[in-house]
Amino acid sequence: MNKVGIIMGSKSDLPVMQDAIDILKSFEIDIEVDIVSAHRTPEKLFDYSKNAHTRGISVIIAGAGGAAHLPGMVASLSPLPVIGVPVKSSNSIDGWDSILSILQMPGGVPVATVALNGAKNAGILAAQIIGASNEVVLNKVIAYKEELKIKVFKSSEDLK
Amino acid sequence: MNKVGIIMGSKSDLPVMQDAIDILKSFEIDIEVDIVSAHRTPEKLFDYSKNAHTRGISVIIAGAGGAAHLPGMVASLSPLPVIGVPVKSSNSIDGWDSILSILQMPGGVPVATVALNGAKNAGILAAQIIGASNEVVLNKVIAYKEELKIKVFKSSEDLK
Amino acid sequence: MNKVGIIMGSKSDLPVMQDAIDILKSFEIDIEVDIVSAHRTPEKLFDYSKNAHTRGISVIIAGAGGAAHLPGMVASLSPLPVIGVPVKSSNSIDGWDSILSILQMPGGVPVATVALNGAKNAGILAAQIIGASNEVVLNKVIAYKEELKIKVFKSSEDLK
Amino acid sequence: MNKVGIIMGSKSDLPVMQDAIDILKSFEIDIEVDIVSAHRTPEKLFDYSKNAHTRGISVIIAGAGGAAHLPGMVASLSPLPVIGVPVKSSNSIDGWDSILSILQMPGGVPVATVALNGAKNAGILAAQIIGASNEVVLNKVIAYKEELKIKVFKSSEDLK
Amino acid sequence: MNKVGIIMGSKSDLPVMQDAIDILKSFEIDIEVDIVSAHRTPEKLFDYSKNAHTRGISVIIAGAGGAAHLPGMVASLSPLPVIGVPVKSSNSIDGWDSILSILQMPGGVPVATVALNGAKNAGILAAQIIGASNEVVLNKVIAYKEELKIKVFKSSEDLK
Amino acid sequence: MNKVGIIMGSKSDLPVMQDAIDILKSFEIDIEVDIVSAHRTPEKLFDYSKNAHTRGISVIIAGAGGAAHLPGMVASLSPLPVIGVPVKSSNSIDGWDSILSILQMPGGVPVATVALNGAKNAGILAAQIIGASNEVVLNKVIAYKEELKIKVFKSSEDLK
Amino acid sequence: MNKVGIIMGSKSDLPVMQDAIDILKSFEIDIEVDIVSAHRTPEKLFDYSKNAHTRGISVIIAGAGGAAHLPGMVASLSPLPVIGVPVKSSNSIDGWDSILSILQMPGGVPVATVALNGAKNAGILAAQIIGASNEVVLNKVIAYKEELKIKVFKSSEDLK
Amino acid sequence: MNKVGIIMGSKSDLPVMQDAIDILKSFEIDIEVDIVSAHRTPEKLFDYSKNAHTRGISVIIAGAGGAAHLPGMVASLSPLPVIGVPVKSSNSIDGWDSILSILQMPGGVPVATVALNGAKNAGILAAQIIGASNEVVLNKVIAYKEELKIKVFKSSEDLK
Repeated sequence: MNKVGIIMGSKSDLPVMQDAIDILKSFEIDIEVDIVSAHRTPEKLFDYSKNAHTRGISVIIAGAGGAAHLPGMVASLSPLPVIGVPVKSSNSIDGWDSILSILQMPGGVPVATVALNGAKNAGILAAQIIGASNEVVLNKVIAYKEELKIKVFKSSEDLK
Repeated sequence: MNKVGIIMGSKSDLPVMQDAIDILKSFEIDIEVDIVSAHRTPEKLFDYSKNAHTRGISVIIAGAGGAAHLPGMVASLSPLPVIGVPVKSSNSIDGWDSILSILQMPGGVPVATVALNGAKNAGILAAQIIGASNEVVLNKVIAYKEELKIKVFKSSEDLK
Repeated sequence: MNKVGIIMGSKSDLPVMQDAIDILKSFEIDIEVDIVSAHRTPEKLFDYSKNAHTRGISVIIAGAGGAAHLPGMVASLSPLPVIGVPVKSSNSIDGWDSILSILQMPGGVPVATVALNGAKNAGILAAQIIGASNEVVLNKVIAYKEELKIKVFKSSEDLK
Repeated sequence: MNKVGIIMGSKSDLPVMQDAIDILKSFEIDIEVDIVSAHRTPEKLFDYSKNAHTRGISVIIAGAGGAAHLPGMVASLSPLPVIGVPVKSSNSIDGWDSILSILQMPGGVPVATVALNGAKNAGILAAQIIGASNEVVLNKVIAYKEELKIKVFKSSEDLK
Repeated sequence: MNKVGIIMGSKSDLPVMQDAIDILKSFEIDIEVDIVSAHRTPEKLFDYSKNAHTRGISVIIAGAGGAAHLPGMVASLSPLPVIGVPVKSSNSIDGWDSILSILQMPGGVPVATVALNGAKNAGILAAQIIGASNEVVLNKVIAYKEELKIKVFKSSEDLK
Repeated sequence: MNKVGIIMGSKSDLPVMQDAIDILKSFEIDIEVDIVSAHRTPEKLFDYSKNAHTRGISVIIAGAGGAAHLPGMVASLSPLPVIGVPVKSSNSIDGWDSILSILQMPGGVPVATVALNGAKNAGILAAQIIGASNEVVLNKVIAYKEELKIKVFKSSEDLK
Repeated sequence: MNKVGIIMGSKSDLPVMQDAIDILKSFEIDIEVDIVSAHRTPEKLFDYSKNAHTRGISVIIAGAGGAAHLPGMVASLSPLPVIGVPVKSSNSIDGWDSILSILQMPGGVPVATVALNGAKNAGILAAQIIGASNEVVLNKVIAYKEELKIKVFKSSEDLK
Repeated sequence: MNKVGIIMGSKSDLPVMQDAIDILKSFEIDIEVDIVSAHRTPEKLFDYSKNAHTRGISVIIAGAGGAAHLPGMVASLSPLPVIGVPVKSSNSIDGWDSILSILQMPGGVPVATVALNGAKNAGILAAQIIGASNEVVLNKVIAYKEELKIKVFKSSEDLK
């Protein structure tokens, strides 16, 4: 249990979404990665979203570019918290299309949107969601933040 | 047959979508109007889209606001031409969200997007699509364009 | 435990943020509401954020407008999941300022951003986060989604 | 009959517009390709648009960049459905100029707009328009969508 | 001779375009006002643009909103300088559509674009163009600028 | 007389502005090229603008990037028609800054704005302004447009 | 000495700029208010800017809308720190024009830009600039910030 | 005393911020450079901002990218004038995120914002702020502006 489902609309989103995979692995949180396209495999989208919470997934991370309907459609079909990662794909209009079609969900169906290409933060957010009820994970988040701080202090030292 | 299916994400879209209804009625084209929400009634979206072409619908007009996933998801599930109407809803960001989430569809799944709140043009486009293989409707489109011209000439007279 | 902390940058954000309060009350989830300004009460921001997780808060919802630093700064100081609500305030540039200063957080410090003025969705997302480890709340979310569906079916009936 | 006319404002649009040519050829739909510039050959634009429907063309695809007037002017002069492809040309402002000058047509004169550089989708949409009254083409569209699905399933397998 | 032709796409543009009429009248420059719609009366657009320079018109002012093709198409067909006025019409996206579809003309076919709703400046620019070869008009422009200055000095006095 | 003054805010604008120089030379119109910076040489800006019309200049072309004040300040100080060329400079925000600070002039002080980096069109527009009262130049503009047409016809032939 | 010069491009900017006047009066800092239009009174702009520092002015606040050249031109001519206030005027494009034409100054000529309609903050910034070398004023700024804090605490009390 | 504090959110901002360092060194103004991250070292941010004015710093320059909270949070905590430099970082949305999250500060807490990547101007502005009460520095600013002028005159000579 407490697994994170990571899905993306196309294999071409993998280089961006890899950051979510890596950070969750570093937190030793179970993940399950798949390609689910809202527009090309809508039936799979349905099956995936309807059943995710029944087989141990606690949080879903969905990344997509352009008119990115994957995160919102998963959120429509699943009761789990869904984190959306706007991916800046090749014919995107500077990423605005992905951001707005993930962020501006109607009342009733939220998507927790992170920054453009922000898959790393999606992973951390998933960990924080699990950490909200799991002290081991919460402490890993606290430790991670401590490391961030130390890195900045080190680069401050380097500068001087 | 040659019916146009008109759907919208919410009853609040009706004032905008009424223009599509009116113009198609004036062309004496059969229509079927319904509310189908991608985010709140995803199963109905599936049923509607999968079966529309099997029961006499030739073109689907789908209007939605904000992160507007309805037109694209219908296009994902139906082989029919889908016309998308970006609706400027209340918390929309000046309409940019609706436009981009309808327009910027990935390769393979087109949506024929019209202007913001352009339901009238969606209706005319549906008529033109039917007219592409139906001379009676084609001639109605030609007559309609003639009327537009006459109105401009009249307003030019009024000005002078 | 499993309380949701709701904070906002200014009392003028309350009409927007009330939607989060209302929806969480309807889910019978404990809330704690306060005004914390990143720019005018930075010390309170520090105290609030550093201690929230030690006194039973599981999720923080933070709403702010303009150059909205509150959600990001809370996320910087707390290990909890932070949901950011971009508020369209009076001198905002169509809401773009609030959205971008909440959404575009750097790697390491995520904010779960919802739509412009989307406080209702922030509340639902908080419930989903709690529901990820609490079956009672999960079932409330499922029931809520069922209600949304029924409302659409009813408005579809009304239309016909 | 049921031919698709593909025009573009300049030879420099050909690399983008080639996708429409290729996909329509793969559907075995007759095409006719030409360069017609709204701004440099306005008389040709007139002749082309006024007569297209009288010589077997059912749908027109028009691609142009910058202040892209070609699709809208063809739509003004022809009763056929016109699909507009916004091309991201060299001095374009990130494509916004092409998109808005094709999409935002006034009431009475629709252009079916597809995504920035979305010539492939323009071709598919043209096939869908023909397919609305031609079962052979409709079935090709259905088969094409099936292929898309299979490709995603394959890339999902590859990932695992 | 030295007449200014003022045209607009729709009678609804008149309240904005009236400013061009008024300022040119105050300069005692001959004007000719008409409604010419690129999309609804394309033949009239052709006739108007092709012949304007042969019947005493020196400069054309063209105002239009949305996907505003009128100024660019007139510039395509006439050798005269064409001044474009982007009009912020009702379903315009904050005026961006009108501005970009008038401003971003391709190499070879310029339109002298003025500010959103800037019909007054279009009139002054037309006077300056005539003044470039007509000392009487040049002196009127100089006198006009002097008046502007005096008004500011007076409002500065009022403030103190 | 009938000379065109071409100025730019910085030597780095020359590669863009060269297009105006070239096209005006091809029309055999006298030009005078200089660097005048609104922000670094304000006194020269004053002298240049106040006297241009007294020494045979009929039209001024001014190119600048970023917060581009040169065209507007020249227009403030000279009674001549001023053509503004927004230059996409290195730290420009996609050219929006140059466009808006040249285009959006207040009532009373127009700048004839052309497309981003549209120096060629600025040159043609200058020729058209001179041609408005000079038949030799008018005919050159007509001949130039004829050439554009022929080039498109040739590229259309090549395509077939 | 240590006077703040407040200028604006037009009397219509006064309702916005009044906030700068009021806050500086509350700090008991000497001010001098005037209307100086970059485009309509360029000579006055020159005189004002060249001499301000010689007659006791330490900081200049300049507010303007649209293609707002006043702050940048003052900064070009004066060695003093210049604070620019982008004013959202009537035909402004949502304020973007004012913001970008004040903010995006070229290297060498800074303008200290504040938020859209942010005249109050311009006044506070002017006080902070004076306070950088004047302890009395510095202490007033510190006291002012304390008041802000107390107001938030009070509104937090009211909420509970 | 009269030292300028230069801070940045990350070492990756140094190439941009170096321009501020260089120009201030050329003015022989004391500087102190450090890395302070609002999101990763919030405690250091607090200490730095609260104490800067007590140890001889007169002006603070803060550069950051994306959802850039550093300048605004420093301004919240320090009574000194704070200059914000929006840095165009790698996943920035064309710099809009940095600009808006620095510029659009709420009433009471100004940040003196300069152009995107405009660290050089931040340095000059800091010198002007010091120069407002220090004639030696004022004269350096005047001399610097004179040099800018001479460079333009030289490049004008080169052109001819």
